[in-house]
Amino acid sequence: MRFRAITAYDGAGYYGFQRQANVAPTIQAEIEAALARISGQAVRVTGAGRTDAGVHATGQVIAFDLDWRHSAEDLRNALNATLPESIAVREVSPTGGTFHPRYDAISRTYVYRLYAAQVRDPLRRNRAWHVKADKLDLEAMQVAARALLGEHDFSTFGSPPQGENPVRNVFEARWGVGDEYCFTITANAFLYRMVRHIMSTLVRVGLARMTPVQFRDILAARDPGLVRALAPPYGLTLVAVNYADEPSGDAEAVMQQADQG
Amino acid sequence: MRFRAITAYDGAGYYGFQRQANVAPTIQAEIEAALARISGQAVRVTGAGRTDAGVHATGQVIAFDLDWRHSAEDLRNALNATLPESIAVREVSPTGGTFHPRYDAISRTYVYRLYAAQVRDPLRRNRAWHVKADKLDLEAMQVAARALLGEHDFSTFGSPPQGENPVRNVFEARWGVGDEYCFTITANAFLYRMVRHIMSTLVRVGLARMTPVQFRDILAARDPGLVRALAPPYGLTLVAVNYADEPSGDAEAVMQQADQG
Repeated sequence: MRFRAITAYDGAGYYGFQRQANVAPTIQAEIEAALARISGQAVRVTGAGRTDAGVHATGQVIAFDLDWRHSAEDLRNALNATLPESIAVREVSPTGGTFHPRYDAISRTYVYRLYAAQVRDPLRRNRAWHVKADKLDLEAMQVAARALLGEHDFSTFGSPPQGENPVRNVFEARWGVGDEYCFTITANAFLYRMVRHIMSTLVRVGLARMTPVQFRDILAARDPGLVRALAPPYGLTLVAVNYADEPSGDAEAVMQQADQG
Repeated sequence: MRFRAITAYDGAGYYGFQRQANVAPTIQAEIEAALARISGQAVRVTGAGRTDAGVHATGQVIAFDLDWRHSAEDLRNALNATLPESIAVREVSPTGGTFHPRYDAISRTYVYRLYAAQVRDPLRRNRAWHVKADKLDLEAMQVAARALLGEHDFSTFGSPPQGENPVRNVFEARWGVGDEYCFTITANAFLYRMVRHIMSTLVRVGLARMTPVQFRDILAARDPGLVRALAPPYGLTLVAVNYADEPSGDAEAVMQQADQG
C-alpha cells in the first residue's frame, strides 16, 4: 500500500533531505531506517523536495510503499517513537498508487527567518539568520519583494536542473511582522538555492545598499553574477507543499511538499 | 575594574550555569575561559542565578573584576567573538566595586514555554515542553496561577538553601497567548526547582486532572510530596533580573539576574 506523509525536521546536523552515498546522516536515510525498523521491510522514501543541509521543514511531503496491517495513525505513532527527536511525522494517510510528492505538487511555500541586532541571539542559533545591524528597512524590502511576483526567468537567483527551464511562477512573496523579519514565498517550483539568493539580496535592500528598483533590474538581468552572497540555510523552512486535490490557503493546515529552495 | 554584564545562552548541552569540579561544560566555565583568552587574566565570574542543566537565559546577570584598557563595547565584542555560538554577552558596563549580581537583585523573571500537540515538533526540541494533548484549559491554568501571587511559603514547589526561609514573594504569574503556552513568573527569589514544579502542576490543571482550588490547596499544604513531576528544564528561560538602581517593567530592556528557578 502506498502512503503519503507530512514530515517536520530540524535540519541542523543533517546533510540535507536526500540520502547520499558515503555521507550520513540525512533526513531520507533516517526515515527509511525507521520504516525498516518498524516493518522489517526495505522501504524507499520519495520526498517532495531536496532541502539543503541545515534547512528545516514543517511541511515536507514524502511517499513510500509499505505492507502495513494497522491503522495509519498507528504507523505515524510507531514512526515518531522510532525516529530521532529532530524528525517527526505529522500526518500519515493512505494514497493512490500513482501519487508522487514532487511531480504532483502544484506549489511549495518556504519561510525564511532573520533578525537584525548588534549581538547574536544564542537561542536563535541554527534557526534564524543574524544580520549585524540595528534595523532593516522593512518597507524597501517589501517593495523589492513585489518584483518577484508572477512568472519570471529566475536565473539571477538560482539554476534549474540540467537543461530545464529557469522560469518559475511566484504566487506569494511578502515580509511578515513580529520580533523577527520573516519572509514567506510560494511558487510553483524553485530553482536551486533560489530562496537563499533572494534573501541575501533583499537584505542588501534592507541595509540600503541596493534600491528596490535595482532589485527589480537584477532579476530582469537573468545574471547569477549579480548576486554576491548566499543566505545561511538555517533561516529557511519548507512549510508547505500544495497539491491539486487539496484546498490551498492555510499553509499549516494543508498537505504539502517542495523542491530545492 | 568591576564589570556587570547581561548574558544569554542556549542551555542545551550545558550542565547548568555553575562551574563544577570534573563536569564540563558549564556556562560559567565557558565565560571564564573566554575572559582568560582575551585578557590573559584568571577571572572569576559571579552569576545572579545557578540555572539548572538545560535551562536557558536571555537575562542572566554576571559580574567580574578585570584590568581592561579599552571600552566596555570592545569588551563585549571581544567576548562575543571568543565565546561559543550558544553563549552571548548582550551588554557590558562598568559597575561599582561592591556590586553583587545575586545579593543585590530585588527580583527575577522566568518564562516557561510549552505546547500541546499529539505529535512533537522537532523545531521546538530543547526549547519548549511538548505536552501530548490536543489542548489545555488555559482559563483554569490562569485561575490557578493567581494563587501564586503574593507572599507564600512555597515548600510544596521547592526547597530553600539549607536552613533558609521557604517564603518567597511572587509579583507576577500569568499565561500569555500565542501559538504556544507561555508562562511568566516574577518573584523576589525562587526556591530550588520551584518554577518547574509549579509548571508540572499547572499543566495538571490544564489537563483537568486538578482544579484551580486544589492547586491553591496544595500550595497552602507546604508539602513537596504533593507534587508528582518536574517539568523539563529546556522549557525554562531566565529572562530578567531586576536591581533597585534600575527601572523595573519591560523585562527585555532591563538589566537582570536570577537564582535557582
